[in-house]
Amino acid sequence: MQVTMCPERAIMEHVTSRWGVLLLQVLSNGEAWRFSDLRRELEIVSEKMLTQTLRTLERDGFVHREVKPVIPPHVEYTLTPLGKGAANHLVALAHWIEANHPEVAQAQQRYDKA
Amino acid sequence: MQVTMCPERAIMEHVTSRWGVLLLQVLSNGEAWRFSDLRRELEIVSEKMLTQTLRTLERDGFVHREVKPVIPPHVEYTLTPLGKGAANHLVALAHWIEANHPEVAQAQQRYDKA
Repeated sequence: MQVTMCPERAIMEHVTSRWGVLLLQVLSNGEAWRFSDLRRELEIVSEKMLTQTLRTLERDGFVHREVKPVIPPHVEYTLTPLGKGAANHLVALAHWIEANHPEVAQAQQRYDKA
Repeated sequence: MQVTMCPERAIMEHVTSRWGVLLLQVLSNGEAWRFSDLRRELEIVSEKMLTQTLRTLERDGFVHREVKPVIPPHVEYTLTPLGKGAANHLVALAHWIEANHPEVAQAQQRYDKA
């Protein structure tokens, strides 16, 4: 295990960042999302943080940003095939947590009582 | 996708925290680790952050902490079967990143040139 290998570790931090985790999961439904819809879905994320997270994931090639030539113009965000590959692992982890969170809750209760 | 479902989201944040990600991967080799060895492996983590991360993962039932009755006594950390389940997903994500980071690097270069 080489935890300090640099480019990989930076990518891991983007993918597992607080908002990266949520954004990749939301986008993984395969639809095109508008900024305002993403913000509503993620609830408490600030505009600045969402912009920053989208840019980081766009730079990594995970998110595709497209300006739609309509009136008024708007921007749509989708996952690229590469982004889908990364997102799949987060979705699998989220499913695992969904299935196992009662066991985690029991462990927490035991810990807090001890 | 319910990103705001509370207990699951908290667990996701523990598992994907900066040090949680690395710690679960390191522990996933199946060996018992001492605090000082974990600290050395994770390189730049502070003693405080490592203690805090270990406690959070112990409380979630992912990490088992055992005081070995030897002289001088020392503490060993291992993954529980539950922790192994969570760690497997991070290890799979890390392998995916290892395999795909050249493609990410290319995307970054394109983005920076544009």
